[in-house]
Amino acid sequence: MNVVLNSDTDGAMNGVDQANNSQALINTLFGSNTTAIRDRVDQSCRKFFSSTDAVTDMQIEDVRSKFMQFDAPAQGQSAEAYLDMLDSEVLPHCSHLASPRYLGHMTSPIPQFLPEIGRLVQTLNQNVVKMETSRGMAFLERQVIGMLHREIFQADRQFYEAHLQIASSALGIFTSGGTLANICALWTALRLADTTQAPESTKASHTVDLPVIIGSELMHYSFDKGAQLLGAELHKVPVNSLFQIDLDALRDTVEKYRQAGRKIACLVAIAGTTDYGSIDAIAKICEMGRQIGAHVHVDAAWGGGLILSQSNRHLLDGIAHADTVTIDGHKQLMLPLGCGMLFFRDAALSQLTMHHAPYAVRATSFDQGRFTLEGTRPATALYLHAALHIIGKSGYDDLFSKSLQRARYMAQAIETRPEFELIAAPAMNILTYRYIPEKYRNIKIDDLDNIQINRFNISLQKWQRQKGDSFVSRTFRTINQYNNQGLTLLRAVLLNPLTTFDDIDFLLSDQLDIARSLESEIPGVSASRS
Amino acid sequence: MNVVLNSDTDGAMNGVDQANNSQALINTLFGSNTTAIRDRVDQSCRKFFSSTDAVTDMQIEDVRSKFMQFDAPAQGQSAEAYLDMLDSEVLPHCSHLASPRYLGHMTSPIPQFLPEIGRLVQTLNQNVVKMETSRGMAFLERQVIGMLHREIFQADRQFYEAHLQIASSALGIFTSGGTLANICALWTALRLADTTQAPESTKASHTVDLPVIIGSELMHYSFDKGAQLLGAELHKVPVNSLFQIDLDALRDTVEKYRQAGRKIACLVAIAGTTDYGSIDAIAKICEMGRQIGAHVHVDAAWGGGLILSQSNRHLLDGIAHADTVTIDGHKQLMLPLGCGMLFFRDAALSQLTMHHAPYAVRATSFDQGRFTLEGTRPATALYLHAALHIIGKSGYDDLFSKSLQRARYMAQAIETRPEFELIAAPAMNILTYRYIPEKYRNIKIDDLDNIQINRFNISLQKWQRQKGDSFVSRTFRTINQYNNQGLTLLRAVLLNPLTTFDDIDFLLSDQLDIARSLESEIPGVSASRS
Repeated sequence: MNVVLNSDTDGAMNGVDQANNSQALINTLFGSNTTAIRDRVDQSCRKFFSSTDAVTDMQIEDVRSKFMQFDAPAQGQSAEAYLDMLDSEVLPHCSHLASPRYLGHMTSPIPQFLPEIGRLVQTLNQNVVKMETSRGMAFLERQVIGMLHREIFQADRQFYEAHLQIASSALGIFTSGGTLANICALWTALRLADTTQAPESTKASHTVDLPVIIGSELMHYSFDKGAQLLGAELHKVPVNSLFQIDLDALRDTVEKYRQAGRKIACLVAIAGTTDYGSIDAIAKICEMGRQIGAHVHVDAAWGGGLILSQSNRHLLDGIAHADTVTIDGHKQLMLPLGCGMLFFRDAALSQLTMHHAPYAVRATSFDQGRFTLEGTRPATALYLHAALHIIGKSGYDDLFSKSLQRARYMAQAIETRPEFELIAAPAMNILTYRYIPEKYRNIKIDDLDNIQINRFNISLQKWQRQKGDSFVSRTFRTINQYNNQGLTLLRAVLLNPLTTFDDIDFLLSDQLDIARSLESEIPGVSASRS
Repeated sequence: MNVVLNSDTDGAMNGVDQANNSQALINTLFGSNTTAIRDRVDQSCRKFFSSTDAVTDMQIEDVRSKFMQFDAPAQGQSAEAYLDMLDSEVLPHCSHLASPRYLGHMTSPIPQFLPEIGRLVQTLNQNVVKMETSRGMAFLERQVIGMLHREIFQADRQFYEAHLQIASSALGIFTSGGTLANICALWTALRLADTTQAPESTKASHTVDLPVIIGSELMHYSFDKGAQLLGAELHKVPVNSLFQIDLDALRDTVEKYRQAGRKIACLVAIAGTTDYGSIDAIAKICEMGRQIGAHVHVDAAWGGGLILSQSNRHLLDGIAHADTVTIDGHKQLMLPLGCGMLFFRDAALSQLTMHHAPYAVRATSFDQGRFTLEGTRPATALYLHAALHIIGKSGYDDLFSKSLQRARYMAQAIETRPEFELIAAPAMNILTYRYIPEKYRNIKIDDLDNIQINRFNISLQKWQRQKGDSFVSRTFRTINQYNNQGLTLLRAVLLNPLTTFDDIDFLLSDQLDIARSLESEIPGVSASRS
């Protein structure tokens, strides 16, 4: 078949008044030389990526006021004119996540080959929900899922030869992100509990009937969403001083529910908490799950990427015994946003939530859509495929080792500065700390003091964010060593490979400068009282 | 702040043995000139987009056998070498959706400026879950949601001035696709039913307690998923001869559930069924919903884009009275995959499923993540923003009118060929038909005949797909005019703006050729017996 686009399309135009206009539009959208657009986008990318911080001094209310137009444009404009507008009216107000001094969230600049792969993904426009709209790409998706599955679960070659490309089940699925991966894991666990565990109590009351999901208080909020959506009870167990689930408390909780005759559908272990990067005792939780016949899910959205790193994969010891594992490709693996994944140790688990439809996604096909909560999906697998081949396991090993090294450097830098208090040393590449205003140093800090210190740190973080030279995020959590009082914490994520030790020093100095200004404004009290 | 990337990163490298290797890797990934990669991708895009069909003659089992490698690469390779490999080993096996003779699914080539916008979206890497990782982009997202909201619900200017950019609620959300948009609509409806409708029956039995969702038998399979996930009963009502929900049957069903004291949480109207493109009587269903106090959701994943078309928006009459509406940007609006949307007529509905988290997505912020089921999300809003500005409403009007014209042309072409039977004339730009082997023409077709004709059409569609010169999909549905017997139907989607009348004629001739070969192979019987 030789179909040349931009060929004669007169056939469709006969008898239509605005034939010329229509043809011009189609030529513009599908047939024009895109070099001019491409160069224009290049320029915007480079400007954003490589020069000054895109966060303007503008207050958020002023940025907001620039986006009040609500009439869809009646007429189109040229792509070039649009890109000009974008350049002046939108890009300056974006968050400059690529900056090596933006250490606030689980973001990083992505390797530059990936947006080019993205262009290919969008041009191919393969829809991996079904074979007829993806063919080879669907097998490629199963292939990369298999590669990570093997890193996680380390089954033998026969296992993968049998399961990698088989129509009846899947070793894992891609999702739009960790939230959906976690929700699909819970869905699987609840379906499993439904089919295997006989309820020990009567079904007289709806509330008694709810299956139970247990994990630490640091579970990602996707578990709250999932439990609400699925009608399950989510029980949160306290953490120890290393911000890992307290195993004694977990055992007691399990026992309590069992004695009450409740169905424990799922135990959750976290490999990289969002707040601290801490990792639960995965092996022990898996063992406990086996003992009580509960599904064990590991939320490794943040930490899971480390499985590719020979030097650091020991941090995830025990993960091979989990039933399901979530990994976000767009976190540690630095893929574009939208690359969540859920892995099933036993491929048969993928069959518990299967669906199909008569017009496609046929029951007897290879259609991957039978296994996913989502329907139509882009071929995000190609990002992982490209990164695995271009960066390789050794490249990721190197990037992760550097990232962890940066986190340790920052922890040391915080500890050598008496103005700061390190709250959570980095188990991985996240750490939390706070600024202690001068009057609270070297004294025993009480509850009222902490309320003042919290206010001060909120002001500090907001000022730093507005100033725009460096950035950390903040969180609010109860802390064991302060008698479970809620503390406002500064939170740094050391993912960006372009961040240097100098950038870290700069960020801390920037904070000290801001903090001193805040303190001097209202001597003797915290600035937030102003 | 002046941060120049590719600057000295020695700080992070001190004391590390493989400092040079590490730096080289970082330079390659983040600092290298990407012109070579870009040109290489250009070449692949152009090859795929503009020349021959990418579907090889290879049988699916042979394609499968090419993706059996399951060891993640230990070492990286150059992007150029990777792209060479992709070009020879992967792209030839992709489905050639851009072909103007591929009329099988809801796909089209996307306007060429969009993959360039995609490159920008991925480079900016804005995460619209929260303000700190998106700023202006979060407001832009609310802005384009507002633009489509206005086209759908046509509220007055004061309404949008008050609701467009307000922290406490949202006019709509982006999702990864129509499936999640529909599930979020059901979630909203069920939460609403929970808070407003007192159950009329006792809660003695779990089953009696399930809230009810009612729509036609042609509801997308996302409703099956949603009902299972959320624990609701999904009731499917038959359709009339135009493949719209039978309103009398709907009324009877509603009455039956009400008399049984059951909670009707949601009525579903479809604007563009996946199988036929048919549109339910939206206005009447909205009225019925109001009368019984049930939420009305319109699944306009396929048809919703027509709201932008002055000449065709009347097809969606009544949609302004719906409570929630799903639209997929990646269908009629031809955006990249992953641009689902859910709109709330009353912004307060967005608050029913709100969630927040301490480390971000704060309750009192503008963080859009409070309203979404998903967490981290890419700025897909920019695709819609760009398309609205570059194509404009008038451009979409033109594209839709041509698309509908192509569908009418194909319907006529089918009707003039005695070998085909048109099953569903196009209400929009989808139609279904089937081939009638010679021996079944001009006779009264009975049930056994239909079974043979079904087999024949399955063979025809599979052969055509394998031959690879043109493509339609197939579906299997019960059909009124054949006494509700299940029929295999050929299904054409006339979305691709590059498809000409000649392409349509080609496709039908291609089918006739294949059908004749099939018939001649085994004279007098259908080929599928072979």
